[in-house]
Amino acid sequence: MDPEIRERWQHRLTTLWGEHIPLAAAMGVSIARLDGHALEIAAPLDPNANHMGTAFGGALQALATLAGWGVAMMVAGPRFDGHVVIGRSHMSFLSPVPGALHARCLFPSAPKQAAVQSALAARGRARIDLVVTIGTIADGRLPEQARLEGRFVALGQPGRGAAVT
Amino acid sequence: MDPEIRERWQHRLTTLWGEHIPLAAAMGVSIARLDGHALEIAAPLDPNANHMGTAFGGALQALATLAGWGVAMMVAGPRFDGHVVIGRSHMSFLSPVPGALHARCLFPSAPKQAAVQSALAARGRARIDLVVTIGTIADGRLPEQARLEGRFVALGQPGRGAAVT
Repeated sequence: MDPEIRERWQHRLTTLWGEHIPLAAAMGVSIARLDGHALEIAAPLDPNANHMGTAFGGALQALATLAGWGVAMMVAGPRFDGHVVIGRSHMSFLSPVPGALHARCLFPSAPKQAAVQSALAARGRARIDLVVTIGTIADGRLPEQARLEGRFVALGQPGRGAAVT
Repeated sequence: MDPEIRERWQHRLTTLWGEHIPLAAAMGVSIARLDGHALEIAAPLDPNANHMGTAFGGALQALATLAGWGVAMMVAGPRFDGHVVIGRSHMSFLSPVPGALHARCLFPSAPKQAAVQSALAARGRARIDLVVTIGTIADGRLPEQARLEGRFVALGQPGRGAAVT
């Protein structure tokens, strides 16, 4: 990913979540990693805990939704002039998340990204299906302690410019 | 529902969400209605808004999860000594939620509640499948602007005492 594009998206998403989505601010969401492969975002456990001392299921869903939404926005393109909404999601809670929350969403393949751009140009609407892995990092790895499969819908024109990755 | 049982659950859920689940406190979750038919909880729009001025999808999922979890706890029984976790959920976002968030979860039928009690007594484990309707009240009605279908799992012994409704 071009460093300038990464910088711009990091700023855009961080500003949006920190200043315009109060719940994301309350959760303490930050960007842990952004490159051509994935967007990974994180949040500390304390504001997102349940009464058992593990992550609250609602917080896991919210974090996963933000990760998928961020990737969908980026796939819609740097000059996308519309907005992205979530259409439906399926969440599997596989085991308790015992510490800081991480949510990782891989970018779709280049052909899938191109298909999104084409659909936006042709119809002003495109579906973007994404999978998000959620868990607590251990030994440098992110175990799949929860998984979100989400369908996002981009509505608008792609504008000029290539896909993000 | 017996007024004393209702009072006890209102206090228990309100205390739990207000004092032990920080995100529920940040959302401003309160109990709007609790009777033998349904648990309905609410939250103001402002702390749960997105940058479009409607409800953030993550907040809708979190509120729906709390409503379902509350009903699952009550179905597990007033003397249930274990805990309830969410196993999986499917969320449909049907239209934007434009104002204060309401989530309503109906109690399962009496035979289904009895089956949960039996499963807990026999195996210390019971599945509780629930549907939650989410939207903004208009003209005294709650439109289905989002829907959660959740599978909750109660783990523990039912203890003495009848089902809640």
